Amino acid sequence: MKTIPAEKLKEYCFRILKAEGVEDSCARDVSDMMLDADLTGVSTHGVSRLSIYVERVRAGVVSRERNVRITQESAATLVIDAGNTFGAAGAKFAMEACIRKAKESGCCFATVHNSNHFGTAAFYSKMAAKEDMIGFICTNVTGKIAPYGSKTAYLGTNPFSIAAPSEGDPFLLDMTPTVVALGKLITAQKLGQSIPLGWALDEEGNPTTDPAAGRRGSLVPIGGAKGSGIAMAIDILAGIMSGAGYGRYLHDLYSMDAPQGLGHFLGVIDISRFIDLTVFKQMVSQYMHEIRNLDKANGFNEIRIPGERGFAELQKNLKEGITIPEPVYEELAELGRQNGLSL
Amino acid sequence: MKTIPAEKLKEYCFRILKAEGVEDSCARDVSDMMLDADLTGVSTHGVSRLSIYVERVRAGVVSRERNVRITQESAATLVIDAGNTFGAAGAKFAMEACIRKAKESGCCFATVHNSNHFGTAAFYSKMAAKEDMIGFICTNVTGKIAPYGSKTAYLGTNPFSIAAPSEGDPFLLDMTPTVVALGKLITAQKLGQSIPLGWALDEEGNPTTDPAAGRRGSLVPIGGAKGSGIAMAIDILAGIMSGAGYGRYLHDLYSMDAPQGLGHFLGVIDISRFIDLTVFKQMVSQYMHEIRNLDKANGFNEIRIPGERGFAELQKNLKEGITIPEPVYEELAELGRQNGLSL
Repeated sequence: MKTIPAEKLKEYCFRILKAEGVEDSCARDVSDMMLDADLTGVSTHGVSRLSIYVERVRAGVVSRERNVRITQESAATLVIDAGNTFGAAGAKFAMEACIRKAKESGCCFATVHNSNHFGTAAFYSKMAAKEDMIGFICTNVTGKIAPYGSKTAYLGTNPFSIAAPSEGDPFLLDMTPTVVALGKLITAQKLGQSIPLGWALDEEGNPTTDPAAGRRGSLVPIGGAKGSGIAMAIDILAGIMSGAGYGRYLHDLYSMDAPQGLGHFLGVIDISRFIDLTVFKQMVSQYMHEIRNLDKANGFNEIRIPGERGFAELQKNLKEGITIPEPVYEELAELGRQNGLSL
Repeated sequence: MKTIPAEKLKEYCFRILKAEGVEDSCARDVSDMMLDADLTGVSTHGVSRLSIYVERVRAGVVSRERNVRITQESAATLVIDAGNTFGAAGAKFAMEACIRKAKESGCCFATVHNSNHFGTAAFYSKMAAKEDMIGFICTNVTGKIAPYGSKTAYLGTNPFSIAAPSEGDPFLLDMTPTVVALGKLITAQKLGQSIPLGWALDEEGNPTTDPAAGRRGSLVPIGGAKGSGIAMAIDILAGIMSGAGYGRYLHDLYSMDAPQGLGHFLGVIDISRFIDLTVFKQMVSQYMHEIRNLDKANGFNEIRIPGERGFAELQKNLKEGITIPEPVYEELAELGRQNGLSL
């Protein structure tokens, strides 16, 4: 494990992307998003993804330029063509545009198509919360969930995030409609461990404790038909309504044959059009305070609000730096050597 | 069991509400909603609720008049005071207003406060789908879910619904973020059956197989912290942002001491602002068709799309009539006798 100050690590990633020919503002958006993920403890979406992002740039399947543009607009809607730019650049542009228009019209919803992997959904929804608004975002991804009753990995793990401001840190839900993320299966397989029944199905649609069989099969949605239904709703909004398509029309982050062609759906709602903002933030704070202080169930010594763990990690990591595993450090150092940069 | 033609049953409910002094249009909205629930197989929200609705009218805790009004408005937002009218009248008014404004601005979101039990969420979201728009609605209710890590029933079972049109029946998700509805515990208790682990917690927050202990305790959210987080997001949108409050500020449908004071949050999105409507509906149909025809998992002989079972029930029940259990029939007949009406 190596520990690196956050600012230094972010600048390093930015300079590597720049050296790979990525336009300034895109390189900035991608580095900001990755560092935010690492700072808030979501290392699966942090600098560990830099090497795959660079690989996609070199393979020519993601654009080096910020080609994002608004192609259609009404008082409270936006259609955005991300021009195959980095997901972080496309989604951040879209969220900023929604915030701007929500200030005028009270709310604004947007679709984004022709986009790529955008990292953590929370990075974008909390931009709205910072502006004292409700932020929502979801994205489609390639199929990894078998619809309830099926044995075929067909629905995307389609994450979504909702953020709402309080007097302190925002309420920040960021989740996939699956029992666990694919990463947990990958880790278990690496460690030679079995997984609990209920996480994944094998290729025949039977519950499995073998992580390798689960990876060949599918992830289990939360609540059976319910999580399956949420994944479908996101396919419809972020995939079909955006014109991006769904599951089988999309390309995986790790296959270098084509742009990913992802779609996002997002929106911002101006709270002050509904209720006095001070009252709202005070009530959200009180609500979260009440929940934290409820009686704990057996086996729990705290009750966490969505987003809370991330904000605690953020404070710690800003002070102490970001700790990255040796293999990720080596990858980053190698990308630096290839570009005449040192970590 | 008694079977009654749908139109006849709806008219009977309407006339009873009218005879109880409920304003015409409110009586109509409530009867329409209840019958739609029975027709689509959601009998828990159908005419079996008429007696409690009448009881609330008589107790003076729900208004006989349609006092709904818009108190604040911008291009794409609405604040609606339901004036303690029936939930069905308040929510239907709000959905109609959102549809109207979404046609102008591209989308519209609304909060409703000072409202009551509105029945099934799907009744309102599919109004938007019928107008070729995306419909969304959620409502807060009194606390019945223990937040993940707690043993206190604090979060509402907060249902939500999303509808999207296709070439045929719409995609229609309507769910609570709980593993099962409270009704399943009530039924198991009546039949003297135990319930599977994972449905409910007892008062100490321990998993229980005893439905009575579960009813004293709490319902389990889907996906642990995930379902718990969804319930919180709905408390924030439908409860706090509407000014209605959450869980402990609300009153139960079955307690006659006060108006329920519920809040709803809903919105409509005009699909044609994003994509050609014909293409959208065709792709949603294709998507649902593909899912239905995936390989089945062991133990399943069909894969159902959200809403599909309800539309099948609707066709059957329109033809064959609505079958209601003897006790519900007796309740309805008694309400008729009290008002000089016969079923």
